[in-house]
Amino acid sequence: MNSEAWNGFVGGKWQSEIDVRDFIQKNYTPYDGDEAFLCGPTEATKTLWAQVMDLTKQEREKGGVLDMDTTIVSTITSHGPGYLNKDLEKIVGFQTDKPFKRSMQPYGGLNMAKAALTTNGYSMDPEVEDFFKKHRKTHNDGVFDVYTPEMRVCRTNHIITGLPDAYGRGRIIGDYRRVALYGIDRLIEDKEYQKSITEGEMTDDVIRLREELSEQIKALKEMKVMAASYGCDISKPASNVQEAIQAVYFGYLAAVKEQNGAAMSLGRTSTFLDIYAERDLKNGTFTEEEIQEFIDHFVMKLRLVKFARTPEYNQLFAGDPTWVTESIGGIGIDGRSMVTKMSFRYLNTLNNLGTAPEPNMTVLWSTRLPMAWKRFCAKMSIKTSSFQYENDDLMRVTHGDDYAIACCVSSMRVGKEMQFFGARANLAKCLLYAINGGVDECTGVQVGPKYRPVEGEYLDYDDVISKYTDMMEWLAGAYVNTLNVIHYMHDKYCYERSQMALHDRDVKRYFATGIAGLSVVADSLSAIKYAKVKVIRKDVEITKKIKNPQTAKSEIKVIGVAKNVVTDFEIEGDFPKYGNNDDRVDEIAVEVVKKFMAMIRKHHTYRQGVPTTSILTITSNVTYGKNTGSTPDGRKAGVPFAPGANPLHGRDKSGAVASLASVAKLPFNEAQDGISNTFTIIPNALGKDQIFAGDLDLDLNK
Amino acid sequence: MNSEAWNGFVGGKWQSEIDVRDFIQKNYTPYDGDEAFLCGPTEATKTLWAQVMDLTKQEREKGGVLDMDTTIVSTITSHGPGYLNKDLEKIVGFQTDKPFKRSMQPYGGLNMAKAALTTNGYSMDPEVEDFFKKHRKTHNDGVFDVYTPEMRVCRTNHIITGLPDAYGRGRIIGDYRRVALYGIDRLIEDKEYQKSITEGEMTDDVIRLREELSEQIKALKEMKVMAASYGCDISKPASNVQEAIQAVYFGYLAAVKEQNGAAMSLGRTSTFLDIYAERDLKNGTFTEEEIQEFIDHFVMKLRLVKFARTPEYNQLFAGDPTWVTESIGGIGIDGRSMVTKMSFRYLNTLNNLGTAPEPNMTVLWSTRLPMAWKRFCAKMSIKTSSFQYENDDLMRVTHGDDYAIACCVSSMRVGKEMQFFGARANLAKCLLYAINGGVDECTGVQVGPKYRPVEGEYLDYDDVISKYTDMMEWLAGAYVNTLNVIHYMHDKYCYERSQMALHDRDVKRYFATGIAGLSVVADSLSAIKYAKVKVIRKDVEITKKIKNPQTAKSEIKVIGVAKNVVTDFEIEGDFPKYGNNDDRVDEIAVEVVKKFMAMIRKHHTYRQGVPTTSILTITSNVTYGKNTGSTPDGRKAGVPFAPGANPLHGRDKSGAVASLASVAKLPFNEAQDGISNTFTIIPNALGKDQIFAGDLDLDLNK
Repeated sequence: MNSEAWNGFVGGKWQSEIDVRDFIQKNYTPYDGDEAFLCGPTEATKTLWAQVMDLTKQEREKGGVLDMDTTIVSTITSHGPGYLNKDLEKIVGFQTDKPFKRSMQPYGGLNMAKAALTTNGYSMDPEVEDFFKKHRKTHNDGVFDVYTPEMRVCRTNHIITGLPDAYGRGRIIGDYRRVALYGIDRLIEDKEYQKSITEGEMTDDVIRLREELSEQIKALKEMKVMAASYGCDISKPASNVQEAIQAVYFGYLAAVKEQNGAAMSLGRTSTFLDIYAERDLKNGTFTEEEIQEFIDHFVMKLRLVKFARTPEYNQLFAGDPTWVTESIGGIGIDGRSMVTKMSFRYLNTLNNLGTAPEPNMTVLWSTRLPMAWKRFCAKMSIKTSSFQYENDDLMRVTHGDDYAIACCVSSMRVGKEMQFFGARANLAKCLLYAINGGVDECTGVQVGPKYRPVEGEYLDYDDVISKYTDMMEWLAGAYVNTLNVIHYMHDKYCYERSQMALHDRDVKRYFATGIAGLSVVADSLSAIKYAKVKVIRKDVEITKKIKNPQTAKSEIKVIGVAKNVVTDFEIEGDFPKYGNNDDRVDEIAVEVVKKFMAMIRKHHTYRQGVPTTSILTITSNVTYGKNTGSTPDGRKAGVPFAPGANPLHGRDKSGAVASLASVAKLPFNEAQDGISNTFTIIPNALGKDQIFAGDLDLDLNK
Repeated sequence: MNSEAWNGFVGGKWQSEIDVRDFIQKNYTPYDGDEAFLCGPTEATKTLWAQVMDLTKQEREKGGVLDMDTTIVSTITSHGPGYLNKDLEKIVGFQTDKPFKRSMQPYGGLNMAKAALTTNGYSMDPEVEDFFKKHRKTHNDGVFDVYTPEMRVCRTNHIITGLPDAYGRGRIIGDYRRVALYGIDRLIEDKEYQKSITEGEMTDDVIRLREELSEQIKALKEMKVMAASYGCDISKPASNVQEAIQAVYFGYLAAVKEQNGAAMSLGRTSTFLDIYAERDLKNGTFTEEEIQEFIDHFVMKLRLVKFARTPEYNQLFAGDPTWVTESIGGIGIDGRSMVTKMSFRYLNTLNNLGTAPEPNMTVLWSTRLPMAWKRFCAKMSIKTSSFQYENDDLMRVTHGDDYAIACCVSSMRVGKEMQFFGARANLAKCLLYAINGGVDECTGVQVGPKYRPVEGEYLDYDDVISKYTDMMEWLAGAYVNTLNVIHYMHDKYCYERSQMALHDRDVKRYFATGIAGLSVVADSLSAIKYAKVKVIRKDVEITKKIKNPQTAKSEIKVIGVAKNVVTDFEIEGDFPKYGNNDDRVDEIAVEVVKKFMAMIRKHHTYRQGVPTTSILTITSNVTYGKNTGSTPDGRKAGVPFAPGANPLHGRDKSGAVASLASVAKLPFNEAQDGISNTFTIIPNALGKDQIFAGDLDLDLNK
């Protein structure tokens, strides 16, 4: 295959096969220079952004939501085109026919979609509701048809929590670059070919895959229709950087029209798009200012991705996040830096449009990145606090140089790997279950197996470890099986056809699990081992959420009493605390992670998903802590956990480096879905001198 | 569990478990007497039936359909109650809110449901159509997403034919008696229990089964709602024969409200219901006349089961059949006759209401049936020609004494076994493919594999057998895999939840295949072996159905020419013909059946379905013949095949017994889904004397 749109590109395998990485590696121009070439915002950009700021203000004043669709179920082609100002926009496309109007997406769950409307003062068209109730089962319906009583009780007692069983699982990144490089027609042709080689004995797996490929082809066709409604033809390869950005965005837009996922990440687009920009600059097609304008408008659109969500959802994922994560930079496996001018342009949108949490720009950090880039990143971080860093040197080993981050830390090869997102198991609560023989310390309900609780006044380390191992073993099984149900039903009722259309056929599926409360567990076990921990028992009222038939609201009712539940602890003496680079306790954390991961690996996983785990709560740790009783480390009931793999707030008293060193001991091999460390520093913590003295025109001490 | 409704019944295992057979065996009263006790129709029956006849006339005058629903998608609870005459009806319930109004059922396929409406002058509510197109995939959508090009070409060239890929597969018999004996509440309780023991590692199979059990429970709950709309409470066991009949009918009605299956059979209800009748007669609750009236009204309702169907469907299954098959009589495995007074009452409806093809009453025949019953059957057969006989002595060996017939000959244990219906492979056409190297003799299309065609002027037996074996091997694979796709999608998009709610959890699934054209194959191979068969070749235009974009209709276009296709044969000399009890050819038929069944058994079958085959076309043989070229037995292109396992029309020249003897040689073990023989006799064929001389008041010679 060849295309005029490819004139000037170095050819290769990417021409005969769908292989974006090959195209990038053969064509990108590393940029070692500084930010001097960057342009400010154009008048059009300023006008549009002012309009956005005004709408944002209106949205805030209306309580967080400006407009919602109540009648049209969102699909790729459900809405006509929408604009801020058609004449000024260089990159177009909204989820609905209007900016700030949130779409209605009930495939994940009808009640969730309804609640998202009603809690914002809207209500779903009764005909749509009726039809879904009678004829269109949702992901949520399917899951609850299958959940066992054990799964439900685990869920309501928050030992397994944040499960994507009523909302989109997200964490799937379509390779949106393919739309630009190949055009939809070539992608359809490829999918037809993939389907034609998916034959032989018609087992359930083959049938499912063939149906999925058919759905993907339909989605690709619909993308063309959607683009055409904006006057754009994406059937053929993009011929310049504006078209390329627009095509990438349309690919992404199809995804967010179809899926209200917890994290709808963008991928790794900047180095790819820079190839087009370099060609256009060389040919005089566009000026630097124009290209920056395209990127500014693209980023503006990404900032305006909005979903209809419920207060409960917002409680778990605070700040209305969409996780439009874009992974920037990194080092290629041939050793060249993958930083390009486009990497600078992406960060420059924070100057041109001002700071924002979305898109979630993620710098893939390597010690070998060009110094000018490092400096620019540092400067922009200080200025905006609006992006994150992740360890490319670590991830490149397993994922090569064309992976991207989904959500906050989940790495996957773009278009070749995806993730079944699995939220988290609360290992701190699991420790309390071990102590109490499976009885929940807050609700008094027998949630775990009826193992023997601890006896006596003081906790014995070996006894607790033995009981904890048994309880974790149970939890791992309950957890994996719950996720099996969720992902089966998500595929069945809410399949991500447009995103998977931008993947290879034989995709690797990560079966992601997650851990909450790691530092609490480490410190608790350390306290039991190195100090003396006395248990305090009391009777706990057994409570249950029961729906009041009169008000139709759930009420918490007392239905009995659990006797002698350990609900608090007294610690005599001191003990080593995680976060101080002290192996005595850090090793405990490492052991817990290894052990739990091994237990997870024992179980059947849906579609041969490769089990991984993560330690990465960023905001939900507050909720997890709220639902967990007092722990043997001295943390009181309801107090938030530390985020991700962080030491518990205030316990890392040996300085930043020691704190980071503790976290760094956690084995990435056993937690490949990511380990997060939320780290806030005040400039003084880094010393008294200016960093890169003389290069930055700001004083870190100010 | 106990119930007042069970007073007077002999207790047993059936009280603690769902076990209708145990209840029947412990409680039924065999009846050896004659028909003298039977009552004629009541005035109410006559009035109602006159009304039905009038509506039937109106329906005929309107071209076969009186009324159709165009807005409401049929579910168990979609319609309010419907009556002929509420005051006169002793057994109530229609599929919609009016008799003769056909319901709209698009789950199987939207186009089929639309076509059923439009070809009858109605049109589907555009909102319903729009919603299904956008949000509710159907069985038909799923199947066509997955079909391979090979499957499609097999289908359009009629080598595999009559596939249930756009209509309900049917052939599933709910144990409707359970509703009467246990009441819905107990059945729900049982299903909840079954669900609770479907746990452990959540593999796809376990997840699917748990979801199905949930769906079944919902269906049971809806059945109660439907019954309540008629003022009936079916939550508890039926307390008399009227309630029992009504409960059985509601169970069945739920099925035909949800499923437009090719065969929606009733089961084996007469002996069961007789137990209630006997108790009521003994207690003086009802008179014989009243009981006959209940049965008459029940049968009237069964006769009024109607579906919305297309002309194409009617061509395949002529006569608007619903296959409400009811299996009557038979012998228990303890040797007692299972004929009861109720068996007589069922056949007596043919007197009271007149003859009708539905319900498809099927007498389970045994040489050991009571003589009075045999005589009554013979008399009623002669009088009405309205029921069929099947060999209980044969089926009882594998199926026990509580099986029933689905459709015409498919036997299954009620509530314990079901069938994945698989229509048929055209083995006569397959023989022509063997001769022509996979090229279709009618369309010129390369359908089968490109094996070497026969060469030379005359067919050589060994050469043809070798080629036929290869081609059958291919066909068996293509056929089974096509069925795998169909049944996967039927379960996914059109699951028979109400029927499966009246089955055990661990149901045995027959994976039914079927053979068409057996006698043509046997005679053709016999001709090749015992006579000389010369081939006649000609060029065949390759035709393809192509949709004309302007008219949106399919047109047949010539797209090329297939050279030297064998399209006719000349036979020199005579040869033994199947149907004359001649082992030389009968053995060929036996061998073909055995061989094909062995090939079918080589393949993976959906849900571990147990492969069976049948030789049982009853009307569709005409269509199969129409689409098959001339065959080496001298049958000309387009001439109908014989029905089922029948000899070809007019070739059985050695008398009825010899003809039957040939059919009887076919091995039931290798064709367990049934072997049918359509046999019409004129009285003279049976001799000149009256049968049961003196017992019957009719002269067979008249």
